Parts: sequence; C-alpha cells; structure tokens
Amino acid sequence: MNGSHPQNNTVTLADYLLTRLKQLGVGAIHGVPGDYNLTLLDYIEPAGLLWVGSTNELNAGYAADGYARIKGLGALITTFGVGELSAINAIAGAYTERAAVVHIVGTPPRDSQDERKMIHHTLGDGDYSHFAQMSAHVTVAQANLLDPRTAPKQIDDALEQCILHSRPVYIEVPVDVVAVPVPADRLESNIQISQSLPSPAFEAAITKLTERLYAAKQPVILVDCETRPLGLMNSVRQLIESTRWPTFTTSSGKSLVDETLPNVYGIYQGRFAAPKTKSVMDNSDLVLFFGPHQSTTNSYSLTALPRTDVTISFTFGGIKVASDMYRDVSAKQVLDYLLNNLDFAKLNADTKTDVDLPRERNLSFSDVSDEQEIKQDKVWRLIGNFLQPGDILMGETGTPGYGVREMSLPPHTRLFTPTTWLSIGYMLPASQGAALAQRELMASSNYHGIKDARTVLLIGDGSFQMTVQELATIIRHNLNVVIFLINNDGYTIERCIHGLRQGYNDITPWRYLKAPEFFGAPENTYTNSAKTYGELKQVLEDKSLTDAKGLRMVEVFLDREDAPVGPLVDLLNKQKDKAD
Amino acid sequence: MNGSHPQNNTVTLADYLLTRLKQLGVGAIHGVPGDYNLTLLDYIEPAGLLWVGSTNELNAGYAADGYARIKGLGALITTFGVGELSAINAIAGAYTERAAVVHIVGTPPRDSQDERKMIHHTLGDGDYSHFAQMSAHVTVAQANLLDPRTAPKQIDDALEQCILHSRPVYIEVPVDVVAVPVPADRLESNIQISQSLPSPAFEAAITKLTERLYAAKQPVILVDCETRPLGLMNSVRQLIESTRWPTFTTSSGKSLVDETLPNVYGIYQGRFAAPKTKSVMDNSDLVLFFGPHQSTTNSYSLTALPRTDVTISFTFGGIKVASDMYRDVSAKQVLDYLLNNLDFAKLNADTKTDVDLPRERNLSFSDVSDEQEIKQDKVWRLIGNFLQPGDILMGETGTPGYGVREMSLPPHTRLFTPTTWLSIGYMLPASQGAALAQRELMASSNYHGIKDARTVLLIGDGSFQMTVQELATIIRHNLNVVIFLINNDGYTIERCIHGLRQGYNDITPWRYLKAPEFFGAPENTYTNSAKTYGELKQVLEDKSLTDAKGLRMVEVFLDREDAPVGPLVDLLNKQKDKAD
Repeated sequence: MNGSHPQNNTVTLADYLLTRLKQLGVGAIHGVPGDYNLTLLDYIEPAGLLWVGSTNELNAGYAADGYARIKGLGALITTFGVGELSAINAIAGAYTERAAVVHIVGTPPRDSQDERKMIHHTLGDGDYSHFAQMSAHVTVAQANLLDPRTAPKQIDDALEQCILHSRPVYIEVPVDVVAVPVPADRLESNIQISQSLPSPAFEAAITKLTERLYAAKQPVILVDCETRPLGLMNSVRQLIESTRWPTFTTSSGKSLVDETLPNVYGIYQGRFAAPKTKSVMDNSDLVLFFGPHQSTTNSYSLTALPRTDVTISFTFGGIKVASDMYRDVSAKQVLDYLLNNLDFAKLNADTKTDVDLPRERNLSFSDVSDEQEIKQDKVWRLIGNFLQPGDILMGETGTPGYGVREMSLPPHTRLFTPTTWLSIGYMLPASQGAALAQRELMASSNYHGIKDARTVLLIGDGSFQMTVQELATIIRHNLNVVIFLINNDGYTIERCIHGLRQGYNDITPWRYLKAPEFFGAPENTYTNSAKTYGELKQVLEDKSLTDAKGLRMVEVFLDREDAPVGPLVDLLNKQKDKAD
Repeated sequence: MNGSHPQNNTVTLADYLLTRLKQLGVGAIHGVPGDYNLTLLDYIEPAGLLWVGSTNELNAGYAADGYARIKGLGALITTFGVGELSAINAIAGAYTERAAVVHIVGTPPRDSQDERKMIHHTLGDGDYSHFAQMSAHVTVAQANLLDPRTAPKQIDDALEQCILHSRPVYIEVPVDVVAVPVPADRLESNIQISQSLPSPAFEAAITKLTERLYAAKQPVILVDCETRPLGLMNSVRQLIESTRWPTFTTSSGKSLVDETLPNVYGIYQGRFAAPKTKSVMDNSDLVLFFGPHQSTTNSYSLTALPRTDVTISFTFGGIKVASDMYRDVSAKQVLDYLLNNLDFAKLNADTKTDVDLPRERNLSFSDVSDEQEIKQDKVWRLIGNFLQPGDILMGETGTPGYGVREMSLPPHTRLFTPTTWLSIGYMLPASQGAALAQRELMASSNYHGIKDARTVLLIGDGSFQMTVQELATIIRHNLNVVIFLINNDGYTIERCIHGLRQGYNDITPWRYLKAPEFFGAPENTYTNSAKTYGELKQVLEDKSLTDAKGLRMVEVFLDREDAPVGPLVDLLNKQKDKAD
C-alpha cells in the first residue's frame, strides 16, 4: 500500500533541523541547556556543529544576532518559557534590524501539552501557546513541530522566511519528537528559496531606472544598513567602482562599503554634515538609496534622508522611484541587471564624479599632547588607528556608538553600531557571536585571505554591566576580542538627554580590569588602562596588546560630562546650561 | 461652568502613581534608566522612595518579585521595548507564582505614537502596541496612561487587580504625560480594594465547613505557597495553634508556618514521605489545604496531593469542598469567620492531635568527620545551623532548591524555593529585592522585633553565572546578604535529568570568590571556601562571617555527580547506571 509504511530513507527530526542549518552555513549554535531541550542538544556535536554554551539566554540571543550579521544566519536553542522569554528582547532587536536568527525552543512533551498539565515553565493555566503568541510579534514565521509527518516541510518553510526577510523565526521542538524519524529526501538538495519571477513591474523598473541613470548629472549613492540583509554589498561595491559616483553611507551603513575607495566620503550626517557635503546631497538630481532603514536614530532625526523626488530606493518591498513603488521586484535582481547591462562609459559621460569633500580621518598622536586627559572629541579618531583590515568594530549604544562614526576604517572591516533597537548590553554578547563567525570565515579562507583579524569592542561602563558575563564565553572559546571599556562613571548618554547629575544615571563603580581574572581568563591576559593621551598611545602601541590572541581589555577613563562632537554634545551642552 | 476648569487640587501624574505605590507599602523601586522613563525617575526620590538602580532589567524584575514576596508589593520601571522585554521573563515568573509586581514602562511621547514614527526602541512598523500585547499574557491588568483625565482611575484599577490577584500589572507612562496635572482628590484616602460580599455561597460554605471540621477524627492541615498571596499566613498560624492538628507544608509552602511549633512536621513529600507520615496523610478524613498550587514540581510529581474527597481547599477561586467549588467566597473571610466562631474545645474532643512523626532536623558537625569531602546528603542540614530567626533563605533552582527542603528553620524565617516557573538566575536578584524589603521591615519595627536578620542565598555555579551582576546592587545598597556558592562544576540538576557527562552541561569555570572585589565591594569583604566538613565548620563558626554586615561569600565545593537525597538523587543514579 502506498504511504502506509515509513520510507527507508529517514533521519531523526533533530538531525533534519541541524543538517538544514549546517547546509545554510551555520557552524555554531548559541543557547543554554534546559530540561526540555537536553535531548536536542545531544545531536549538535555529532552534526558537526559547535555548541557555544552561553551564560544566559538574552546573551545567547544577542550573540546569535551578532553571528548572523557576519555569517548570514545564526541560531540559538533555549528552553520553553523561562529560556525563550529571557531571549525575546534580543529576538525583537534582530527583527527590527534584520538579523536572520533561528530561535529553536525545546518544549514540553506532547502528552503534557495535550493533557494541559500544570508543569514547570508554564504559567500554570494549561495553555501552552502563550509564549509562541508573544514571539509571533517579533518573528516572521513560527513552526511548532508537533507532527513529524509535516515537520521537514515546516522547518524548510520557516528557514526560507528567515532568509528571505533576514528576520528571526521561531521553531518549537517538543522534547518527545526530537528522536522521531522523518523523511530525509528533502535533505538531498539545499533548501529552496523562492525567487521573484520576471514580471512587467521588473521590466518597467529597469526601463525607468536606466532612463534616470543615464539622465543624471549630479548623482549620489547612499548606502544604508539594509544593504547587508538584502545581500547587495558586493553588487553595490561594483556599482561604486564602476560609476565613481560620490558615495555616502548612513551611520548604520558605515563599513558596508570600503571607505578607502576614492569616491566614498563616509557618513552623510544631515544637519551635522559639512556645508560642502550637504550641498552635494541637496543639489543631487539622483540618489541611489540602497537598503534604507529610515528611523530617526539612523538619519540624524530624519535630516539625513535624501529628497524623495530624486531618490531611487532599493528595498525589501521592491524598487521605489520617487513615490512610485515597483512591488515584488527583487532589489538584487534589478541591481545585477543594471551592472550587467549599463554602458558605464555613456553613464559617466555627463555626470559629476570628481568632488572634493571632507571625510572621516583618524588622528595622529602628534595632534595631542601626552599629559592631556583623554577627551571625547579626539579619542575615537585616535583609537581608529588601532584597526586593521578584516577587524570587526563594535560601538555600543552610548558615546561609543556615536564615537565610532568618526573613525576611518580599513578595507574589509565591519562595524556594528546603534541603529534603531538600541538595547544597551547588546554589543558585548554580539561581539562574542561576531568574533566566532569571523573565526569560522577565516578558517574557511572565505575572509579576503585575512587570517588574524580581531573583534574590537568599544563599550561604556553602564552597558558593560548589563551583560558582562558573556566575557566568560569569549574566554571559553578563546575568541580574539579586544575590549575598550569606556569608564565615564555612569550612563553619560542618558545624562545628555535628561538628568545630567541625577543619581539614577549613576552606576556602581566596578573594578573593571578584574573582569578577565574573575571570569576565568588565563592569568597573563592583557589588561591596561589610560587616562591621558600619552598612556593611550603607549597602550595602542604595546606589542603585548597587539600581538596577543584571545581576550584583551583596556580601560579608558573619560569625564562623565563629555560626549562626541555632533548630536550628543549638543544635547549635553543644553543639559549643562540648564544645570549651571 | 462645571467641569470646564482644572481642579485646584492637582498633582502631577508621576506623583499620583508614586504616592499610590507608597501608600501601598512600596519603599523602593527597581529598574534601569532609559530615555523614555528619565523624567519619571525625577519624581522618585522627592516622593520618598528609593531608586535601586538595577544592573539590567531582567534582574530588576526578579528583584522586584523578591521584594514583593516579602513586603506584599513591588515595582520596577523600565523603558519601552528594549527594557520591558528584557524583564518579561521575570514578570511571567511573578504571574505564575503570584508576586504582586507593578511593571511601569516609560513609553515614547504621544506625538510619536500618534504619528506612528519610526523611532528607536520600536520594531519600525509604526505599531506601538506590540509590547503591551506581549505583556498581556503575563499580567492581570494593563493601563496605558494616554489620557490624564482617566489616568488616576486607571492607576487605581490596575493596582487593585495587582493586589487582589497578587499578580503583575503593566502600566505604560508616555514620557510627555509624566508632569501633566491630574486630580489629586482620590489620594486623600487609600486605594479601595473590592471585597467579597456576604452571599448564600459564603453561608453554605461556612455551614459545610463547620460540619466537616466538627466531624473530623483524623484531620490534617496542609499549607501550600499561595497561602502567602492569599494573605492567610497569620490566620493559618492561629488555626494551627488552636487546633494542634498535624500540619504539613508543600515544598514551596515551607517557612510559611513556624516549623518549631510542636504539631508542624515539615514538608509532606508524597512518594518520598516516611511511611508513618504517609499513613497519616493517607488515613486522614479531612485535609485543610491552604493556598494550593498544584504543579508537578511542587507536589513530588502530583504524589504529595491530598485525596480530593477529604480535602477542603482555600484558594483564589473560592472554597473547594471535595469537588464542589463555592465561588466568589473569600478564603480569608471564611477562615477568619471559623477562627472567631468555632468552639475549639468541641473541635478537638474527637480528633487525633497527638502524633509522633519524623521531621526535618539539622545535623551537628559531630555527625561528620572533619577531613571528609562535603557531600549533598548532609551539607544542607549542616548549613541549616547557620540560620537565625528572621533570616530569609533562598534556595536557587538546582541542587540547592532541593537541599533547602531538608533544613529545619528557626521562627520568622522565610524560604524562597523553586516552585513552578523555575527560571535559573532568579534567586540572586530576588535575594537583593528580598534583603531590601527585609531591611525596610526591620527599620519599621515590623519584623517581630528582629533588627539584624540576613538574607542567605544558596546558589549553584550555573545559576550564579546567569545574573551575577546583581551582586553590584547588593554591594551598592550594602545589603546583608550571605552567599553560599555551590561549585559543582556545571549544571548538575540537568546532569540528573539528561546528559550526565555531556559538554553542554559544562560551564566556564570562574574564579568565583573574586566576585566581590570585581563588583566593587569593600576590600575587607569576607570570602572563604570549603571542600571538607572541617573547613565548612570553621567557616560557619567564623566570627568574621557571622558578625559582619553587608555582602559575604563562601564557595562550597561539591562533586559534579552528587545530588540531595530524594527525587534528584534517584534521577542521578539512573543516569549513572546508563552511563556506566
């Protein structure tokens, strides 16, 4: 009888799920064990995946997000209720800023669920669906693998949504289904990601764009952060090199294009932009806007957005020309079509490509005097010299998140910077995930030939306190992470906004440099501190910092009432005027 | 014109809310600053409340829960999205186990909400209601204070629900409404908590109960954890003393009755109970069951529940006699009526009150030899001697959560023990909140005259890692907390369940005793460790531990494959049999 017997070719459900993740490039899984996920964890190492073993679930979520932004896809496993809810803030951040994170939750046995038993990690009301409903707000797909017959298809569908939208999905694995056999036949080919079909809208968009591109006299390219999840980074680079058009990024788009290219001028800062730069943007007759993400915090309060009438946006929804949206058109397909079909000689004949504009430049220590105390107006551009090609730079929400915008970055660096979710505490665990992804890419020679890049975290003392224990995971996996702990005695970014000298913006002072020792690092782990520019110079040139591997930590002391030039220092000065 | 002008008697909305909390006994507010709550925080100290300044929001939620379980009501303030979601696991725990926690969230200005602006801490879709919808799953009331005209009533209604159900509520305060004046007239009297009215059901329940109580020959009193949120602790004590009936608790009911009373026999352990004890329960013809909370983890897998036909339950829903529920009847009103109207001489004439049963007893160090390594079978009953009247004992989920069940507790102690939510990491921040509440009660002479009680936390290394930074808050507020860190090299409770020697149950080894130094404690803070019983004895008798104030920390080394007698060691032995 057809269909009455199980197929010969089967795998356990756990193996199915983990194999799919591996096929999609996931090399490591974050998370915390719990009794509803323990049997699932048995399958991780045999599947050739690394179990990270995070210190808590929020940190696991942040780390999986950091990993996903570097490798394209990340995953974490938590346990029902307690574990998954601890991670949900991280999932919301991944949703908002488009990190493709697969959140796998080990759930109670189906018997308990069917009987509505009052067991641990439930709310005690017999309703096992609360947490999935909560997660639905911050995930693009949910799959509850109650039925092994449909589980492979459910998994594939959820993963496809995760990849298409570059947003988190939620997969529930009841503990009693982990080892159940499921058909293996789908695994023979990689997961099928649906593609946009040729359509009249595509043709119309191409026609319109071609016309606009050839007509442009003062075109500009503007690269925003969704260029990454749209998968446009390489194509955009090609466009920048082929057109030689003046190129800017948003603050969160920084590092998605190579800043050492001659026509890349750094961040367009809207009302904080240099007049000459602002004039180029204001007078442009065409802005190619890649991956727009138009939150107030990513656009200098909406002042750094291009004029709608001259803008062509490449978005997840399609191609938008001025106010007209060409829906169901793939941004990548359109861009690649243009790259293959435009006549660049003709394109550049009439356009203005040769502009001389200011851009981010690092400072030299000869610009400051040794005995001077370190200040926010220069420190970031001095630390900028520390970076090397391939490094990942993490600027945590707070003054570092603004400070990193001032740095000039070497090729192949990647910057994590506050965009919209701005959950303080994110960057430390995210640096763990990013550093792990970076190491995997370097090992696979898939990292521009670079083998010894670091992840450099700049983080304030307030943020550091939130998620500090993930240092232990960095130590456990011996990741190459250099931390600059900005000790400015509390929440300086909050002081800039309100309550300059209020007690609620204070934090407990810790002995920060004891962190590596406390969290179990080798006893010779590098730590040092700097209060003056001379000390900072010594640290940055110290071979025992630069030549070392693994965790290293530098405490940089700054005044509590000091902020980077730009929006923050403006706010701070207003607070000071009020207070004085 | 009536109603056309503001009343003379007004307060700001912030003052209204904080005054109400203060009237209800809240002395301190937990939380983390964020730009949508900063102006609200300005009002805390002027209102005579302490701002705790937690290190992160999950910890703030756990701490507010611990505070609420001691003082009756707790509160935390977080910021929209990022802050509140980090705390939501703690709120879910408070919901499950009935801690009255007020979760106040500072939200974006109403202008931004109305305009559906894409601002920070939103998901970027213009929908500002996601997080309230998520919180609705784990709170009994929600209030969004968009309209100052109705805000006082909304606040009162939410707080009433919080108190009636002893469960969390969720209050959104838009940042631009904080300082708006609202009518102050309601504040002249305390908040009105609706009471059950006299009813036929009440009369019927009293009749039925009186009849059953006088008829009982072998009655038993069983005290479960919801006795606390039902407000029955004092009345139940009176009943125990007046009836002299054999009294047991559930594991989570432990400490809610004074274990030094002659007729209190400790925890009824179901299938793990001594045969004599089991026989008393099995043969009883009446079980007065106070505050039942019948989860598997609170009932030795449902084996410690009394027989339905002989049971009268005092619950949040009403009084349940066998299978008949008398709804809308207040458990407290019924119990107090009985205490005032029963003839106890007549009641006890026929009942069996004199039973001789085993009960929890602490051990003496003469029962062990000095050089022996510390084992789970005895360590808890040795540490039991450390406790003093008024102490709060916290046994974190894991082996300590089981171990504390073995201890004999002095009068007026309170025990926190895993019940249903079992979120590891809870106990450390909860001990901060509980210790703060304890200090406030001692200062108000409302603590049985005790002035120098401590909060004693027993916590495994795995749990400790989850929320360790809250040590800084214990240090900041100089709380009297003694920590016994159980170092058994990973998640031993998980090893008992599955994966005895699997890598995923390992954790990074930390240098635990460096914690006080790292988190900024005074340099003379007491730390010590013990591997043998002799060392443990020395520590427990050390004057510099017992006579000190503030944070103290002891690391106790135990084998990774060792568990307390009872369900855990049974599971462990099965795992060992499988592994060997």
